[in-house]
Amino acid sequence: MIRTELATLGEFGLIERINQQFTPVLPQTIKGIGDDAAVIDTATDEYLLVSTDMLVEGVHFDLSYVPLKHLGYKAIAVNVSDIAAMNGIPRQVTVSIGLSNRFFVEAIDELYAGIQAACEAYKVDLVGGDTTSSRSGLLISVTAVGVVDKTKISYRNGAQPNDIICITGDLGAAYMGLQLLEREKREFLENPEMQPQLEDKSYLVGRQLKPEARTDIVYELLEAGVVPTSMIDISDGLASEILHLCNQSGTGAQVFEENVPIADDTFLTADEFKISPLTIALNGGEDYELLFTIKQSDYEKIKNSPHISFAGFMTNDPKNVELVTKGGSRFPIKAQGWQHLTNHPS
Amino acid sequence: MIRTELATLGEFGLIERINQQFTPVLPQTIKGIGDDAAVIDTATDEYLLVSTDMLVEGVHFDLSYVPLKHLGYKAIAVNVSDIAAMNGIPRQVTVSIGLSNRFFVEAIDELYAGIQAACEAYKVDLVGGDTTSSRSGLLISVTAVGVVDKTKISYRNGAQPNDIICITGDLGAAYMGLQLLEREKREFLENPEMQPQLEDKSYLVGRQLKPEARTDIVYELLEAGVVPTSMIDISDGLASEILHLCNQSGTGAQVFEENVPIADDTFLTADEFKISPLTIALNGGEDYELLFTIKQSDYEKIKNSPHISFAGFMTNDPKNVELVTKGGSRFPIKAQGWQHLTNHPS
Repeated sequence: MIRTELATLGEFGLIERINQQFTPVLPQTIKGIGDDAAVIDTATDEYLLVSTDMLVEGVHFDLSYVPLKHLGYKAIAVNVSDIAAMNGIPRQVTVSIGLSNRFFVEAIDELYAGIQAACEAYKVDLVGGDTTSSRSGLLISVTAVGVVDKTKISYRNGAQPNDIICITGDLGAAYMGLQLLEREKREFLENPEMQPQLEDKSYLVGRQLKPEARTDIVYELLEAGVVPTSMIDISDGLASEILHLCNQSGTGAQVFEENVPIADDTFLTADEFKISPLTIALNGGEDYELLFTIKQSDYEKIKNSPHISFAGFMTNDPKNVELVTKGGSRFPIKAQGWQHLTNHPS
Repeated sequence: MIRTELATLGEFGLIERINQQFTPVLPQTIKGIGDDAAVIDTATDEYLLVSTDMLVEGVHFDLSYVPLKHLGYKAIAVNVSDIAAMNGIPRQVTVSIGLSNRFFVEAIDELYAGIQAACEAYKVDLVGGDTTSSRSGLLISVTAVGVVDKTKISYRNGAQPNDIICITGDLGAAYMGLQLLEREKREFLENPEMQPQLEDKSYLVGRQLKPEARTDIVYELLEAGVVPTSMIDISDGLASEILHLCNQSGTGAQVFEENVPIADDTFLTADEFKISPLTIALNGGEDYELLFTIKQSDYEKIKNSPHISFAGFMTNDPKNVELVTKGGSRFPIKAQGWQHLTNHPS
């Protein structure tokens, strides 16, 4: 009997293997696996969007420093982010939880208080779920349902050469926040008398603990009359996501280091940790910003947005997805994957 | 700090506590928590249905006797069953899995082969999901999306006094199958040389390992021109489900023991295990048959169906949900809940 280790495939290999087995057959299924959300026809002017994520204690979060309320908020936000990445508006969510018996009712109330806060922030209804026992800590599975006007949907595969690469907010802060929290945890374990040293790190820690989905950008683009030619949310780092857009669109890309948005706090703390801020922006993950491309003719409409950086452009050579450094050198952009939380960027 | 044990609430208490916190606010949300599936308006003649379930190794299944292919099939079937329980047609599913490193690629292929077989059997498309690591065995979270004509939806709360109680298939077989599998496992652990004794138990074991969702009944009712006044799928046993229909509809019920469908194999094996077959039908769970009510005037249209038993009727006294025994005695029907797989019916 042949036994192949999962690690030989990796996360993307496994997804690709599953994807090849499942070709949608229903006329109502417009897009199955392979984008931020599935796309379903509804015989109206809108498509329905469906996205799902699973969060596992010890893999995606550490309850020794993640407050349950923040965790509940984040579980909703990351799914809403997938709807936003199709240029869609979120509407409903389901939340399933697996609980081990160390959880008390008050702890579950905290978790759902965070879920409720996110439902209010993103104007979505919690409409269902499942509750079950778990042998090993907390499990959370969220499915988000949204809608998008059929003329305004943005897939990963629509970018054209010369389209401008846009990035919302700033990158790398969530990863730096995680490093700070893990350092605090190590120091606390060594010396439980120690007081937390996170007062001036609230931006970075907040980006890790309570990320926001950029539904505001979806509305901003709608108002500006801009439909991205391609879009994805940045959950695994800029490198991985730009490669997804290029692979699916059949384009290459040039990303200019000087235009990759990185916050001052991220620069300062990266220096403290002796990590390159650019590496973190490329591979850090969990920022939940949006990466999208626009036609050059749309640039004027959003060039003054305080929320959007213009980081480069798509090219016609799919073999060259490149980073152009401040000094003018070019490096191929490579992806990481699978357990991005436990890998340090290299 | 107050700490309340989860057991003091129970599964239904926890769901009720969550439900009270979340009142849908969007006009598109027709029904949130509290039925077999959420109901979403789409501005067409159809409602969209969304249902989700989480399956956890060691809680919902034991891989020492559950083949992964069957598990994949079952994970889809139980979610399709929830769509059927709204009188709906399933269309798409998402499947998220959590994997520990003891799983090989070939094992995951088996799981997805079962998922694929179920997708073909129920004519649904797999359209998305998530893959993640798990610290403790296999996790599966499935979300099913379906549709139902707005004039044909069946909620749990629509039953009226004198409506006839209908049950599809037969009850208790899945629970007896589980007992057989667990007995085999115990005997195998005591004596690994032992050969399995399950040849003549294939019906019961099959009902446990590979249950079918009754989408066939949805089509049968459609053809007969019957819309159930209320409906639910039987996942936790007849007792629990009839109480849901009565509680939500504000009715009582009389269920006649002699009309509760139980297969001969279930009778024989229950006798072998010295358990009451009726108790198993009431509390055994996992049959995934449909329990529904119809107007008396619809009885003629389906009375000859080989798939439907007519087990009693709804009454106007919500305080009396009763079982009428073959001898004419009446007993109140009581529910079990929370971890039905690990509790023996009492």
